[in-house]
Amino acid sequence: MVSKLEDAMEGLITVFHTYSSKEGDKCKLNKAELKSLLQGELSDFLAASKDPMVVEKIMSDLDENQDGEVDFQEFVVLVAVITVACNDFFVESMKN
Amino acid sequence: MVSKLEDAMEGLITVFHTYSSKEGDKCKLNKAELKSLLQGELSDFLAASKDPMVVEKIMSDLDENQDGEVDFQEFVVLVAVITVACNDFFVESMKN
Repeated sequence: MVSKLEDAMEGLITVFHTYSSKEGDKCKLNKAELKSLLQGELSDFLAASKDPMVVEKIMSDLDENQDGEVDFQEFVVLVAVITVACNDFFVESMKN
Repeated sequence: MVSKLEDAMEGLITVFHTYSSKEGDKCKLNKAELKSLLQGELSDFLAASKDPMVVEKIMSDLDENQDGEVDFQEFVVLVAVITVACNDFFVESMKN
């Protein structure tokens, strides 16, 4: 049986490949694919940002090796940062 | 509606707190809680390691601030490393 943690990890891999396989390198997100992923999967997060350049900024922050594409390792960093922020919010709201 | 990515992120937070809330600091995993999490959620990963000190080694690797406990941010690093390794395996097996 798959554990809840394994299920979450599998979810991250599946989501990434759902979008990365659309065009070009099947294992990397280009800018259009990243935008599509953010709009499809993190629309609330995107809506909360009033910055029209948010996708460009995320792309440039994540793309550590500057190849204009986001690989899985770079994507996991984004997910980790957002999840830690969500957890901090959750923990704070539990205290109050 | 919760997206697949949001669902995975929520899963990471839920799993962590299921184990971290058992004793002591409710928002950190002590060694017993980390061992319980690894056995309950990553038993295949644990079984694949023949090293009897694997839990101690993971604890010492994760516990960056050396307080003998693993916080959520330290836990996410473990999940990220394992998920990237799983993805690499998945991508390689797709090529063959």
